[in-house]
Amino acid sequence: MGVYVVTGSASGMGQAVTLRLRADGHTVVGVDLAGAEVDADLSTSEGRSAAIGLLLEKVDGPLDGAVMAAGMGPKRGRERMLVEVNVLGVTDLLEALRPKLAAAAKAKVVVFGSNSTTSTPFVPRMAIKRLVDGDAEGATRILKRRGSLSGPASYAASKIAVARWVRRICVTPEWAGEGIRMNVIAPGPVMTPLLAGQLKSSTASQVKSFPVPIREYGTPEQLAEWVMTMLSPAADFMVGTVVTVDGGTEALLRPDDWPARLPLRLLPRMGWSMYRAPKRGQVADYSDT
Amino acid sequence: MGVYVVTGSASGMGQAVTLRLRADGHTVVGVDLAGAEVDADLSTSEGRSAAIGLLLEKVDGPLDGAVMAAGMGPKRGRERMLVEVNVLGVTDLLEALRPKLAAAAKAKVVVFGSNSTTSTPFVPRMAIKRLVDGDAEGATRILKRRGSLSGPASYAASKIAVARWVRRICVTPEWAGEGIRMNVIAPGPVMTPLLAGQLKSSTASQVKSFPVPIREYGTPEQLAEWVMTMLSPAADFMVGTVVTVDGGTEALLRPDDWPARLPLRLLPRMGWSMYRAPKRGQVADYSDT
Repeated sequence: MGVYVVTGSASGMGQAVTLRLRADGHTVVGVDLAGAEVDADLSTSEGRSAAIGLLLEKVDGPLDGAVMAAGMGPKRGRERMLVEVNVLGVTDLLEALRPKLAAAAKAKVVVFGSNSTTSTPFVPRMAIKRLVDGDAEGATRILKRRGSLSGPASYAASKIAVARWVRRICVTPEWAGEGIRMNVIAPGPVMTPLLAGQLKSSTASQVKSFPVPIREYGTPEQLAEWVMTMLSPAADFMVGTVVTVDGGTEALLRPDDWPARLPLRLLPRMGWSMYRAPKRGQVADYSDT
Repeated sequence: MGVYVVTGSASGMGQAVTLRLRADGHTVVGVDLAGAEVDADLSTSEGRSAAIGLLLEKVDGPLDGAVMAAGMGPKRGRERMLVEVNVLGVTDLLEALRPKLAAAAKAKVVVFGSNSTTSTPFVPRMAIKRLVDGDAEGATRILKRRGSLSGPASYAASKIAVARWVRRICVTPEWAGEGIRMNVIAPGPVMTPLLAGQLKSSTASQVKSFPVPIREYGTPEQLAEWVMTMLSPAADFMVGTVVTVDGGTEALLRPDDWPARLPLRLLPRMGWSMYRAPKRGQVADYSDT
């Protein structure tokens, strides 16, 4: 049986994953605002430091996996808080937990992204760049300029940034090289208390007209099932993948955009990556077997 | 217990999936060149017609799922055969099976793509377009012009085309609207007899220097596990997704390219899709519950 850290463990999809892991006999150290093993506010630097301190104390051996499900939904006026939780609440914690993940055999990390990454208009490119670099203040300044669109733009920017951070870092000697399998799950609309509330609110008709080709919303249990597979040995060969589970919204809106053939402008970069790969230990190696 | 069609059932990943399904008590109607329930050559129009005739005969009720694993690897001089098997061997068969899939409750389709879609240089754009339109002859003419690169270019073009076909069609009233969940699995290098042979051949050093950040190859069993999840109720909310299982190659070579924010030029198209979605039945609908 393994030891897992789950953020956002007290509600929604984080809770569904926590329940599944515990039902299977694993130990879960949950992180949430209240009611978890580690109560902490991931929207401030102090809160994250406190969470990290407690996590390193409570996880005294190797860590078999981490599920980063804590996140804030779009809301105008809370841009700074949102990007801190959704980006730094993932990256700061994972960087601190990395040595413990490396100490386990084939540790798995699942980060919650969103399918809104590919369907939200007017997301400022520079805000994404700032967030990938960990500059929440700079990103917030840019995002606030979006005015009434700053809520969805901040949310999408935070989720693009966190997916990009994962995809850049997961393949490095410090992560994949240490046996850590890190991937992203990108849900569409899932029937959580949040969505149920929206369906009864004044914006219900807007929510109901959002395209979901399969004609039903996801459930926290379905998403938890994908996370469980991404934590299982089936994921030993999965690194840097974004698993979209969204009822077909992305395929409807962006069918031709991915997978995309390699553009010529990326050839030099790709040549360089391939040249360095053997030197960086990024090729298959069965020499000790 | 369900009824499934699996192409390429006699070897490699198709065989691994067939064994898993049968071990779980399902009925599998396999399709392969020889040694399957339906022996047929998917590289010709006549072969595909024969396969379809036999499949419609052998599957007399609803079809719970289809796994399209038959495929040919890159080889110069066999461009036409390759695109026929890898594209028309999927699309012709699925179009013929669609009514039987629609007759099942929540049928699942898994199409084998490849991570070579995003890492192969010099894939001609027009060849992809022709293949999505079903024009194997026109595509082959373009692909042959790539000379010594025509093998990998044909392979990648065929896999991009089939992924694009899936992503365009899966969200329509005829597929998602009929409850069919269609998705793509995109493996990287998997330890099959083909790869084992390459590792002993004169091109071994080239194969060994291909970047695989997790430092080991996939196994047919791991890929079969993902396919099983994509056939399970966990996939009730998954439509049009490409599940990449490749040890991190795509993330290493194209980290920033996907997920990508919505470009302004796609706004009109997206607006139109969103406008039409409720009329086309592409929104969540709980009216009969």
